[in-house]
Amino acid sequence: MDDRATSTQQTPPEAIVHGGDLDAISRRYPDAPRPWIDLSTGINPVPYPVPPIPPASWQRLPAASEERALRATATARYGVDAPEQIVAAPGTQALLQILPRLRPCSTVTVLAPTYEEHARCWRGGGHHVSLTDDVGRLADADVAVVVNPNNPTGRLLARETLVSLAATLRRRDGLLIVDEAFIDLYPANASLATDLPPATIVLRSFGKVYGLAGVRLGFAISAEDIAQQLREQLGPWAVSGAALAIGMAALADEAWLHQTRARLVKDCARIDGLLSKAGCVAIGGTPLFRLVASTGATDIAERLARRGIHVRRFPAQPNWLRFGLPGDEAAWQRLTQALGDAG
Amino acid sequence: MDDRATSTQQTPPEAIVHGGDLDAISRRYPDAPRPWIDLSTGINPVPYPVPPIPPASWQRLPAASEERALRATATARYGVDAPEQIVAAPGTQALLQILPRLRPCSTVTVLAPTYEEHARCWRGGGHHVSLTDDVGRLADADVAVVVNPNNPTGRLLARETLVSLAATLRRRDGLLIVDEAFIDLYPANASLATDLPPATIVLRSFGKVYGLAGVRLGFAISAEDIAQQLREQLGPWAVSGAALAIGMAALADEAWLHQTRARLVKDCARIDGLLSKAGCVAIGGTPLFRLVASTGATDIAERLARRGIHVRRFPAQPNWLRFGLPGDEAAWQRLTQALGDAG
Repeated sequence: MDDRATSTQQTPPEAIVHGGDLDAISRRYPDAPRPWIDLSTGINPVPYPVPPIPPASWQRLPAASEERALRATATARYGVDAPEQIVAAPGTQALLQILPRLRPCSTVTVLAPTYEEHARCWRGGGHHVSLTDDVGRLADADVAVVVNPNNPTGRLLARETLVSLAATLRRRDGLLIVDEAFIDLYPANASLATDLPPATIVLRSFGKVYGLAGVRLGFAISAEDIAQQLREQLGPWAVSGAALAIGMAALADEAWLHQTRARLVKDCARIDGLLSKAGCVAIGGTPLFRLVASTGATDIAERLARRGIHVRRFPAQPNWLRFGLPGDEAAWQRLTQALGDAG
Repeated sequence: MDDRATSTQQTPPEAIVHGGDLDAISRRYPDAPRPWIDLSTGINPVPYPVPPIPPASWQRLPAASEERALRATATARYGVDAPEQIVAAPGTQALLQILPRLRPCSTVTVLAPTYEEHARCWRGGGHHVSLTDDVGRLADADVAVVVNPNNPTGRLLARETLVSLAATLRRRDGLLIVDEAFIDLYPANASLATDLPPATIVLRSFGKVYGLAGVRLGFAISAEDIAQQLREQLGPWAVSGAALAIGMAALADEAWLHQTRARLVKDCARIDGLLSKAGCVAIGGTPLFRLVASTGATDIAERLARRGIHVRRFPAQPNWLRFGLPGDEAAWQRLTQALGDAG
């Protein structure tokens, strides 16, 4: 009776390589100098300073009023029309897990290559998923998924392109999902969260730009009826008291975001210079990571790993490497030295 | 094609009254003395002391190795056979939300009266839910749900009763869900987590006995194939870095649990005396809350509220009141005074 539940039982999990888990790499290179420098993610290495967590935030169930206050702050931060359009979740991944439940069995097209969890989650939900690198083909699906700017390529689709796509999908009762995990440091009008098109769900990550991925906080922005459905799927008390407190402070702090933007512009120029000298060709990126290509990519990654520096490789694109940014001068020096040796 | 997704869209959310949210009561009694004493939950008012959270726990994505280490600690704490039988989730509620996805449309019988989220979640998942107060009727369902000890009545079903029920359900390809949210301070053999019967899922709450409900941590214990399905539904990085760190420390601390048990025995005797003097009849409870009946229950609750003390009422049982335990001597004194006035 319920195809999705039974298909979930029968589908083996797909193995997806993620950045950020140092366990495997440090086992493979046991002699590498410690601590490891983890450049395998796009998480800001200079985090928002965690404020003191009030004891009550640990002890009590998170109050509905606190969750509403966080959504109100996010409304201002993301330029959304109303807090009712926002869903607060324990990480964007928690939203990816439930988006496939919004619709009966659908055709889903994901603009690829991109973050692989989108396709995995929709497939796990029993939908018919295909990948395309052709933006023009997205309008043929019931559900189109775009990561914008894209991870790992950094491709940024223009607002008009996405608004037009949303309008086309809407006429066919379709849905546009735009994962804006890395959009925070782009001009405000790049995000669809402001002047949200109909039939569109925007995902915003908290942990990446604020450098606090372990907090588990993310948001969906959509029409109020969809937002209500997502909140019901998450259930009460989905976001921890600490995440509510930290999110409230960080999302209201415009000065910190401004300083972070300026720092990352400089840091990106610095790493671009290092990578260029090492013979890597810049092919994309965002202010939080750089994507480069090199026929020597495998060698570079292994040499870096032997020096305790973890970068992101892509099994399907062996010439690609993705570099996050070093967080302090010692890390910069180790990266500079290691890339020099590798060049 | 997918009955569940569409029925979810059409079913309005049910309004469930929960304890623990002081927003509404403090609006209704604006002149009550502050701070409010919240006795409306069964959350331990003397929490486990939160250890320092390592900066990396906020900053990094939670590592798979940390999640495995937490499950290993929970395996020892709960007397489970293997860590593969355990699912760590951001609160037991997150597990309640996904349990209904394990099965196609089923008949679900919930032993009632009890915590109302079980019935709400299974109904929201498109299943046919009925309530019964007759343990004998549970074996007729595809899925039987028992809260043990029960909230709010404290009724504790014997292990043999539940093992026998699980065996009956298993022969019919059914499933037994046992929510052991309040079982921590009972003798170890009360829990089905040890010598887990087949076709059984046990839920264990972290936040109640450790007094840290805002941390959002809970566990499911089941056969490995079911545990794997639940982990896939939750997705990666479901539990925050802080919850992993706090859970690791607390679940390994047997001395704290021992002291807590001794304190709560004394506190329960103390509150039972107060409630008896106030004309309330003890009808149930656990070491973390007491359930009493009084024809004057409404009056007592209102008088307490005017004195800034929030207790749990039950719309369907207007003579019932549930009292959590005061956390310090000042709170005990205020409760003693307020109950004296009310008597």
